[in-house]
Amino acid sequence: MNQAVAQDPLLSTDFIQEMVKQMRAIDSYGTYDGWPVERILAPYVVTKEQRRAIPVIGDPDEILLSRIKAFYNAIASLVEKECGLMAVPMINITHEGFGRAVITVGKLVVMDKTLRDVHRYGYESLSKMKDEADKLLSVALEIVGKYPEVAGM
Amino acid sequence: MNQAVAQDPLLSTDFIQEMVKQMRAIDSYGTYDGWPVERILAPYVVTKEQRRAIPVIGDPDEILLSRIKAFYNAIASLVEKECGLMAVPMINITHEGFGRAVITVGKLVVMDKTLRDVHRYGYESLSKMKDEADKLLSVALEIVGKYPEVAGM
Repeated sequence: MNQAVAQDPLLSTDFIQEMVKQMRAIDSYGTYDGWPVERILAPYVVTKEQRRAIPVIGDPDEILLSRIKAFYNAIASLVEKECGLMAVPMINITHEGFGRAVITVGKLVVMDKTLRDVHRYGYESLSKMKDEADKLLSVALEIVGKYPEVAGM
Repeated sequence: MNQAVAQDPLLSTDFIQEMVKQMRAIDSYGTYDGWPVERILAPYVVTKEQRRAIPVIGDPDEILLSRIKAFYNAIASLVEKECGLMAVPMINITHEGFGRAVITVGKLVVMDKTLRDVHRYGYESLSKMKDEADKLLSVALEIVGKYPEVAGM
């Protein structure tokens, strides 16, 4: 465990741990080896000032797209862990930066999010990012709880 | 109406008509204007001999991908027409030619198909293509009929 984990309880939450796992999975060259959690997840933090500095129109690059995928993969992974059924993420983003992210469990759509302006993708802080994840996760689990038969199909 | 329609009742079915509409939608330069139905849909027909001639490994090109999308768009459009609820197709294909096609109605996944070897995509005949479409459509409508509440979410 590194110092950062000892500093902030947020960094040892299931969500942040899963995010780090997802980021390491796409880190083919091992660039993140030995990096603290905060540094690995730093690209997800885009403050209001930083966002203002990003042009309104822009094309998302591959690295940004893989970051967005990592986020929804993490959500799917947590849904799966909580409900014990396979959760499959599917993300479609056009080169203009618009798209849709869906997570399915069986024949049930447990998350369905329209994405826009993804070239400006990011959260004000890691804590805000976790809030968003918690919201998506609890809605997903609520839907599974409501229609377990469809989720089990 | 062109001569081909008069010749074969298959060509005046809802599915084939919808396919033609989808193909015309992606025909930005109006190349298909005045073409008979059979000529517009000809790229969908890949006979066994033709398939054998395609290398086992190959990358699908953009035109082929748009053809696959047109097929699933047509299915979604027919599902929508039959059940009166919005059906949304979503297709993901990697550049290696593997992927997944999903159609959702509300929070219900009414079609979920794994795609592989899409560079060899095609049907033995238009009639076989319609059989496949009919099968997907009837399964989708059956699922909507079983879980109307989830489909209406």
